[in-house]
Amino acid sequence: YELTVNEGGAVGRVNGLAVMGEDSGIVLPVMAEIAPSQGPGQVIATGQLKEMAEEAVENVSAIIKKFSDQDISEKDIHIQFVQVGEGGVDGDSASITVATAVISALEEIPVEQNVAMTGSLSVRGDVLPVGGVTHKIEAAAKSGIDKIIIPKANEQDVMIEPEYEEQVEIIPVSHISEVLEVALAGEPEKDSLVDRLKSITGRALEQREVGAGGTNPSPQ
Amino acid sequence: YELTVNEGGAVGRVNGLAVMGEDSGIVLPVMAEIAPSQGPGQVIATGQLKEMAEEAVENVSAIIKKFSDQDISEKDIHIQFVQVGEGGVDGDSASITVATAVISALEEIPVEQNVAMTGSLSVRGDVLPVGGVTHKIEAAAKSGIDKIIIPKANEQDVMIEPEYEEQVEIIPVSHISEVLEVALAGEPEKDSLVDRLKSITGRALEQREVGAGGTNPSPQ
Amino acid sequence: YELTVNEGGAVGRVNGLAVMGEDSGIVLPVMAEIAPSQGPGQVIATGQLKEMAEEAVENVSAIIKKFSDQDISEKDIHIQFVQVGEGGVDGDSASITVATAVISALEEIPVEQNVAMTGSLSVRGDVLPVGGVTHKIEAAAKSGIDKIIIPKANEQDVMIEPEYEEQVEIIPVSHISEVLEVALAGEPEKDSLVDRLKSITGRALEQREVGAGGTNPSPQ
Amino acid sequence: YELTVNEGGAVGRVNGLAVMGEDSGIVLPVMAEIAPSQGPGQVIATGQLKEMAEEAVENVSAIIKKFSDQDISEKDIHIQFVQVGEGGVDGDSASITVATAVISALEEIPVEQNVAMTGSLSVRGDVLPVGGVTHKIEAAAKSGIDKIIIPKANEQDVMIEPEYEEQVEIIPVSHISEVLEVALAGEPEKDSLVDRLKSITGRALEQREVGAGGTNPSPQ
Amino acid sequence: YELTVNEGGAVGRVNGLAVMGEDSGIVLPVMAEIAPSQGPGQVIATGQLKEMAEEAVENVSAIIKKFSDQDISEKDIHIQFVQVGEGGVDGDSASITVATAVISALEEIPVEQNVAMTGSLSVRGDVLPVGGVTHKIEAAAKSGIDKIIIPKANEQDVMIEPEYEEQVEIIPVSHISEVLEVALAGEPEKDSLVDRLKSITGRALEQREVGAGGTNPSPQ
Amino acid sequence: YELTVNEGGAVGRVNGLAVMGEDSGIVLPVMAEIAPSQGPGQVIATGQLKEMAEEAVENVSAIIKKFSDQDISEKDIHIQFVQVGEGGVDGDSASITVATAVISALEEIPVEQNVAMTGSLSVRGDVLPVGGVTHKIEAAAKSGIDKIIIPKANEQDVMIEPEYEEQVEIIPVSHISEVLEVALAGEPEKDSLVDRLKSITGRALEQREVGAGGTNPSPQ
Ligand SMILES: [Ca+2]
Ligand SMILES: [Ca+2]
Ligand SMILES: [Ca+2]
Ligand SMILES: [Ca+2]
Ligand SMILES: [Ca+2]
Ligand SMILES: [Ca+2]
Ligand SMILES: [Ca+2]
Ligand SMILES: [Ca+2]
Ligand SMILES: [Ca+2]
Ligand SMILES: [Ca+2]
Ligand SMILES: [Ca+2]
Ligand SMILES: [Ca+2]
Repeated sequence: YELTVNEGGAVGRVNGLAVMGEDSGIVLPVMAEIAPSQGPGQVIATGQLKEMAEEAVENVSAIIKKFSDQDISEKDIHIQFVQVGEGGVDGDSASITVATAVISALEEIPVEQNVAMTGSLSVRGDVLPVGGVTHKIEAAAKSGIDKIIIPKANEQDVMIEPEYEEQVEIIPVSHISEVLEVALAGEPEKDSLVDRLKSITGRALEQREVGAGGTNPSPQ
Repeated sequence: YELTVNEGGAVGRVNGLAVMGEDSGIVLPVMAEIAPSQGPGQVIATGQLKEMAEEAVENVSAIIKKFSDQDISEKDIHIQFVQVGEGGVDGDSASITVATAVISALEEIPVEQNVAMTGSLSVRGDVLPVGGVTHKIEAAAKSGIDKIIIPKANEQDVMIEPEYEEQVEIIPVSHISEVLEVALAGEPEKDSLVDRLKSITGRALEQREVGAGGTNPSPQ
Repeated sequence: YELTVNEGGAVGRVNGLAVMGEDSGIVLPVMAEIAPSQGPGQVIATGQLKEMAEEAVENVSAIIKKFSDQDISEKDIHIQFVQVGEGGVDGDSASITVATAVISALEEIPVEQNVAMTGSLSVRGDVLPVGGVTHKIEAAAKSGIDKIIIPKANEQDVMIEPEYEEQVEIIPVSHISEVLEVALAGEPEKDSLVDRLKSITGRALEQREVGAGGTNPSPQ
Repeated sequence: YELTVNEGGAVGRVNGLAVMGEDSGIVLPVMAEIAPSQGPGQVIATGQLKEMAEEAVENVSAIIKKFSDQDISEKDIHIQFVQVGEGGVDGDSASITVATAVISALEEIPVEQNVAMTGSLSVRGDVLPVGGVTHKIEAAAKSGIDKIIIPKANEQDVMIEPEYEEQVEIIPVSHISEVLEVALAGEPEKDSLVDRLKSITGRALEQREVGAGGTNPSPQ
Repeated sequence: YELTVNEGGAVGRVNGLAVMGEDSGIVLPVMAEIAPSQGPGQVIATGQLKEMAEEAVENVSAIIKKFSDQDISEKDIHIQFVQVGEGGVDGDSASITVATAVISALEEIPVEQNVAMTGSLSVRGDVLPVGGVTHKIEAAAKSGIDKIIIPKANEQDVMIEPEYEEQVEIIPVSHISEVLEVALAGEPEKDSLVDRLKSITGRALEQREVGAGGTNPSPQ
Repeated sequence: YELTVNEGGAVGRVNGLAVMGEDSGIVLPVMAEIAPSQGPGQVIATGQLKEMAEEAVENVSAIIKKFSDQDISEKDIHIQFVQVGEGGVDGDSASITVATAVISALEEIPVEQNVAMTGSLSVRGDVLPVGGVTHKIEAAAKSGIDKIIIPKANEQDVMIEPEYEEQVEIIPVSHISEVLEVALAGEPEKDSLVDRLKSITGRALEQREVGAGGTNPSPQ
């Protein structure tokens, strides 16, 4: 069973995008909730996360803790990859999805459900490139999604069929503040939130060059 | 040995439903108790839970902690899958059963024992679809249960034999507050509890569409 | 070596009953002690407990913490399966034995050593059925034990040889308060303790039906 | 290399006895020290302890924490099996050795080094039987030890060669207070310590019968 | 995908250098951020670090905690090896990279992005030798990096092609304060930071001799 | 690469000695640093320590915590086996090396770098025998070390080539205070430190006899 929501707004729910097998994309929602903790607050993520996905959540938590400051020391941050299935979640491409769901839940500002997104994150808020962008965009388009956020560094990877080109708007971003600018719904609250996020994380890099590409290394 | 209770009311006890093997359902009760903790409060679940079942309990705990607010920081929440046997509990389809048992124990409001239930939960209170609904309904009917709560998203999956159709009432739900509305017994306390739960969790989704189904993905 | 004690009273010591291999019972004592903790209080059980036995201790601890309220937040509760041997303890049939030993140690009320017992427990104090009742009863009778407490739900399973029938009294119970009523020794203290335990745990079930039996499921 | 000390007194050092392989005993010293803790106090045992040996230390710690009451909440109790070698320590027969070493260190009362000992312990101070008593006694005698403490329940197992009979005194005991009575050196402090230990642990059993022996069970 | 940044300044971002396979170097950036902690502050490193890399972070944390004193007891220090890929990070040669990224984030002083570095660290601030220096230097040169920091003890290992010799400046260092002297950007703040770091760590060794080399031992 | 330092003084750095393979010794330095902790203070050792080496550090920590009393409850004690290589550190023969490095770092008193050492430790400060003494001494001599501290119990094991005999001074010791007497540099501080250490640890044994030797047992 797969429930797709592609209209209206929802607090703490974001349409993520994932790759299945070699060449198939899927809409994979993430939900978040903030609850009082019993001991010291924790970040609790479910969806049978593998190591790289767990670490993506740790990286996202740096931004969340900085954003919400002292307010979460007695709060648990719950993150749920919904309807994931047996294999569990791997990889770090849901990082911006997780960050958006948690910030929406913290601030109680709805997320636009006609938006889907994919992107990795640095601990300082930079949106980093991911794999499978084309398959993900097609899956989102098939599900009736209108806008798709992707990393700016993946812009040149987009090669979608003409039929989808008019159906969906592709929005390349390079910082988490741009993601929230697009995905959040409520107007004046959203703007002040985005400004606050920008001032807190700063920009790690004022200028950035894309150098020679390559496969990912296993450094020693 | 299997004890079935299908009449009267009991605090902290709920008739859950599970699937055994390929095509057989079973009534699987969940019991809950709240006790003072020794260190910081914990949620302690027994029944040899596998990873997906442990995570279902983590998701349910988001709702419970939010519902009971600060009151449980020095309390342990005990959840027991009773008479489970060697293999242990897997999957997330007992999520609404666990939530109902714990809220009954916290509030000391009895649960109707002629009700059985199956359903997954989001961290924000949405009831999500599960597998094996037909087998579970038949098992409940055979055990003398009168009312069976299932996820609204599973409504079209129900294909039970005519002999059971008159015996049991099927109640599709889409939010945890509807589950408690049906399953709890005491009258005025129940209503205020359900109202409080609604106001706390809100509705993640104001409108919802069921999109194209599919097998569960292992996203990357 | 096996030490059997079947006379007099002892604080914090209870004669449990276990099954060895296919068809042999044995008296397996449990001892308990309460000590000041170094950090937050803990429940510490020894006897190389397997997963199901560890979880039985967790379930019992719900009753103990509720019974003793705040008093144990800086106390360690030590539970020792004595003379267990290499294989360690498995299963949950010593739950009432553990509960009785700990409550005796907490309250410093002696346990009658001519009593042996077997029974699982719910977190709310219900005594649940176990396996091997007949073999356990015969082992207790051979060891000179006079009274044997078993779960009421196992009453129909008792098929002991005539020679033991006159030797031992079988006492079926359905709640932990009945176990203590039989097993504790000191008179006025015992009665108020049993009353307190009844009022704290309540009765989860006012009426109970035994439905169709079956093998234990591995639900999903 | 093996250092044997069999004369004089030493604080926090006790000559234990162990079995190697099938039929060979050895003197295996245990040393203890009490130090201020960094976080909450802990019991830290070294010597590559296997599960049963770790649990024996947990059982001993019940007696130690009760004996020293609140004083150890900010203290680490260090227990060292000295010169153990690759295989590590298994079994629970060093329980009285560990208890004696720690109580000597806590109270700064020397232990007689011409004494060696073997014995398991209940959490309430009962000395329980162990294996290999004869081999252990011969090893102690060969090392020049004068007095050997064994569990009373092992008294009938002693079958030592005549040449050792005159060399060593065998002292059967049934409670930890008797062990300290024999092993500690300083006079008036020792007596008040033994009295205190007796009053704290009480006697779990006023009368005790040794029933039919048997191999150790693996109960279920 | 690989993003290379080789110009300007960035807070909390440092160009590290790693070896891939036998004979290939790569620029591997490290990013750091400081956030309020939920419980006691932690050092959290991501990039699927193997044991030696985890321990390198522990060693670096000694310097960081000493440098920042009490200020980080309620702060989490996030360290991210960016774009690492499947195999994860091993070895300790990113120690100076990690230390520089964290100190930049703590002090909010930018790091020069035309600098890359490789070097192990002692807990007292000594820069220790690493492997693959030549391959690393060539990779940095190819990426447009201008200055490369290496351990002084590796100075004799540098054998780079003539074409790179004019392109890059090799800077051998023996203490972490020299690394920061080169890599940090902001002028007066940097100088006082470097002075403070020198005074805190001292010099473990006033004079040092390089003795007979050899392969790394596995001591016993 | 291997850096040998054999002259001058250094705070928190000690030349240890280890055995590689069957018949080869090596100088293996240990460094220590004390830093403010984030949560409760910890002892953190790096060098891929195997179980016996981890436990050696636990035993040494008993002496360190006792020596420094309450002062380290909010301090982390970092211990680093430098330049260890892939296999990691095993065994307990670096115990006196670790103790010396930590006490030097705590007290900020330099360690003489022309001294190397090997020796195990009891939790009460006794220096216990180790293996490979002859190979270790030769390795130290080859590295230009002048003085080598060994356990008194290993005195009869020293069989070094004549060429080294005049080069190095062998110093047998039986207590940690003697190690510091030889290895520390600063004069008046050192003496009061050694006195304090003697008074704190006392002597576990006033007289000691070396009994019949034997291989290390795996006691049960
Ligand atoms: Ca998980
Ligand atoms: Ca649409
Ligand atoms: Ca469990
Ligand atoms: Ca009915
Ligand atoms: Ca255990
Ligand atoms: Ca009798
Ligand atoms: Ca250990
Ligand atoms: Ca003698
Ligand atoms: Ca990690
Ligand atoms: Ca350049
Ligand atoms: Ca380690
Ligand atoms: Ca020299």
